[in-house]
Amino acid sequence: MSRTYIFKHKHILGIDQFSAEDIFHILRTAQSFTEISNRSIKKVPTLRGKTIINLFFEPSTRTRLSFEIAAKRMSADTFNISASTSSATKGESLIDTARNLEAMNPDVIIMRHAFSGSPHLLKNHTTASIINAGDGTHEHPSQGLLDLLTVWQHKGQIEGLKVAIIGDISHSRVARSDIQGFTKLGARVCLAGPATFIPPKIEELGAEVCATPAEAVEDADVVMALRIQRERQNDSLIPSLREYATFFGINRQLLSRAKDDALVMHPGPINRGVEMSPDVADGPQSVILDQVANGVAVRMALFYLVMGGDKNSTGE
Amino acid sequence: MSRTYIFKHKHILGIDQFSAEDIFHILRTAQSFTEISNRSIKKVPTLRGKTIINLFFEPSTRTRLSFEIAAKRMSADTFNISASTSSATKGESLIDTARNLEAMNPDVIIMRHAFSGSPHLLKNHTTASIINAGDGTHEHPSQGLLDLLTVWQHKGQIEGLKVAIIGDISHSRVARSDIQGFTKLGARVCLAGPATFIPPKIEELGAEVCATPAEAVEDADVVMALRIQRERQNDSLIPSLREYATFFGINRQLLSRAKDDALVMHPGPINRGVEMSPDVADGPQSVILDQVANGVAVRMALFYLVMGGDKNSTGE
Amino acid sequence: MSRTYIFKHKHILGIDQFSAEDIFHILRTAQSFTEISNRSIKKVPTLRGKTIINLFFEPSTRTRLSFEIAAKRMSADTFNISASTSSATKGESLIDTARNLEAMNPDVIIMRHAFSGSPHLLKNHTTASIINAGDGTHEHPSQGLLDLLTVWQHKGQIEGLKVAIIGDISHSRVARSDIQGFTKLGARVCLAGPATFIPPKIEELGAEVCATPAEAVEDADVVMALRIQRERQNDSLIPSLREYATFFGINRQLLSRAKDDALVMHPGPINRGVEMSPDVADGPQSVILDQVANGVAVRMALFYLVMGGDKNSTGE
Repeated sequence: MSRTYIFKHKHILGIDQFSAEDIFHILRTAQSFTEISNRSIKKVPTLRGKTIINLFFEPSTRTRLSFEIAAKRMSADTFNISASTSSATKGESLIDTARNLEAMNPDVIIMRHAFSGSPHLLKNHTTASIINAGDGTHEHPSQGLLDLLTVWQHKGQIEGLKVAIIGDISHSRVARSDIQGFTKLGARVCLAGPATFIPPKIEELGAEVCATPAEAVEDADVVMALRIQRERQNDSLIPSLREYATFFGINRQLLSRAKDDALVMHPGPINRGVEMSPDVADGPQSVILDQVANGVAVRMALFYLVMGGDKNSTGE
Repeated sequence: MSRTYIFKHKHILGIDQFSAEDIFHILRTAQSFTEISNRSIKKVPTLRGKTIINLFFEPSTRTRLSFEIAAKRMSADTFNISASTSSATKGESLIDTARNLEAMNPDVIIMRHAFSGSPHLLKNHTTASIINAGDGTHEHPSQGLLDLLTVWQHKGQIEGLKVAIIGDISHSRVARSDIQGFTKLGARVCLAGPATFIPPKIEELGAEVCATPAEAVEDADVVMALRIQRERQNDSLIPSLREYATFFGINRQLLSRAKDDALVMHPGPINRGVEMSPDVADGPQSVILDQVANGVAVRMALFYLVMGGDKNSTGE
Repeated sequence: MSRTYIFKHKHILGIDQFSAEDIFHILRTAQSFTEISNRSIKKVPTLRGKTIINLFFEPSTRTRLSFEIAAKRMSADTFNISASTSSATKGESLIDTARNLEAMNPDVIIMRHAFSGSPHLLKNHTTASIINAGDGTHEHPSQGLLDLLTVWQHKGQIEGLKVAIIGDISHSRVARSDIQGFTKLGARVCLAGPATFIPPKIEELGAEVCATPAEAVEDADVVMALRIQRERQNDSLIPSLREYATFFGINRQLLSRAKDDALVMHPGPINRGVEMSPDVADGPQSVILDQVANGVAVRMALFYLVMGGDKNSTGE
């Protein structure tokens, strides 16, 4: 790692807060942590005696589990609070929740919330580090970082790549984090999806909007499908899942337009046969499970960095 | 600590079981534990290899979290059982639950239950120590103790203080624990609330019932609001939240009748603008977040003491 | 233990996979672990740094807790995933769940699922060891093993015993595991229950079907009641709980037909007064709580064995 660089972010709220140098520093740190999860004894003492709270106002299995595994493999004490059991149901405000948690001296609070910007509010009322695990349609930075790590591992670089992202851009915090991450590192991001799913002014984040999936995928190095929220079907935003699959699902035919060694990605969980055909999801170009594995490593790195890992030598 | 005193309580069921000497011993022990939560490495090995079960038949975020944090900072293994997932839903009786837990050799069972007296029943069927985390409208002793610790830290003593408690006394286990704790230590406790919220014979616990909040708060050293259960509104026990706030909410005007250095307390979570105005809750006299922080220390002390901490020298 | 025997099972899917030698090896290993739960410090470092996931698609308190206690007493990191919070609700398939978990490098996945055979499916998509904690009406092997351990402890042998199992055989995975376990070790298993609860061809597992509970219990060494699913009453499979209790409930009168030192067993939780009368459940012949205690030891043994405990000397 560069000798003079120091990671200065106390909170991880969005990819928008990072410079390219920050991002590469996180990726390098995460890469060094990937090895821990492959050991027989998957545990380092780095965060012993630290208190890490998962504060999830939206249900989540995988993201919560990934953070919890990352924390425990670094020996932190972890605590899960889910919305259904939270005193949120007793009318307590988010600020009061923050202050109350703060009084119990947590070191890191991981937060998922349906409202964009909630983690920014939380951070003003606690001395803990806040990690945004998805806020409304805004950002999901650890997902963006694990996507970047996955591409970086396979391609050796991000700069100059063409990344196609297909699907519901409007409602996707993953898309927002990925667009910023890939463009900051010099990739070209091309979006496609039903017109109702392309938000106005998305180009301002640095992405290009393509008229068709074919155009977006053409010669791409990375082809990423976003998850279709099945419940959106009732919104009449998409006519039917079958029609969506026909026009926007990533199948072999569409994928054949990309480079031969293009990576296939999906943030999961996949609706097989809707946004991606099974043969593509499970095919040789798919790195979807690498994304999951990298999620643990990226989250370990984020814990390490926000806890000031660079500034002392207790990391193992 | 006094040389000859030994804490003899195996269970923590209510403040009613304690002498003044017991209470001060708990407070002094808790005070000595406050420092652990401010360390960089918030962990001592005192309860390593002990099994502590949170058995919550009512939903709770903060109390459960506070106990869990206390237990993990003492290195115990913790387990959460919540009513919704409990075999209680399969018709198993509380006694069978107790016996079954007992067969797994727990050291401490923390229990919250909607029925007053449930922890007393539980303790007859297990060799584990039982800590009552709230039973119906009966007691919530760890809350009472953290309130006492908070006042003791700020005032240096409890004896001779005037403590005003305003609100729904009838349905409050916190009130019952606080009334007994403060009066045992020599404070004068003055209650006020809507007539429907003042239980008959409450004076027998040692408290005085005042005709108005103003009378209760007059020259008080401590002004504590209880939480209004919003669902009570449907009981017709209170006419409306707005009317309640007008007549019984603690605002600046009411607070000005208390001593200038009176402490403002609330067991949380606060209905801001109902039982307490935001400027009072967040004002300079508020020690509400100290209460939360002290909750962790008091619970560490309770674990330590019921596990026989006084009798051996393994405590750190 | 025998010098040349090596436990070769990576997964614990059912009793049907075991030889008699396998079963005795598990029982002996479990017996050696019973002592750990009676120590003051109930913790050994054997599984430090291992990742054990409880993946429960059906609600469970006791089985989940028993596995979690076993895992933590061996110092493993444990993670709970319950169906209600699982992305199963987002439409993710079981195979995708398996692959995603796999990417996070778990060592053991404990699974309960409403569909028979689910753990067999799971094991094809992960390198982790799978332990079946109950799949549909198929098997619940750790329950079968703890029943065997309990009888073995009290009777010194299994061979030649008569074991009566009374109740809903059709819907009981416990019955299927027990029938195979006891018959493999040379016991005679006699079943009785309402005709609607006796599955066709159950004799092929080695059990005998008796016309009446009296016949099954006659001279038995072990009398086991199965749990009545109260919700079955609506299926019209049983006329009423009262009638069930009268004809199939295990009371003193029925028990008097068994040997004087017959053991009374129940997998729990008991519907007192339905499948068993309280005086029998709590009487001197009852070993129901031994079953619970042995559950922790059996699960510690299973973790130890599937993690290759026999092949190295790290076990304490």
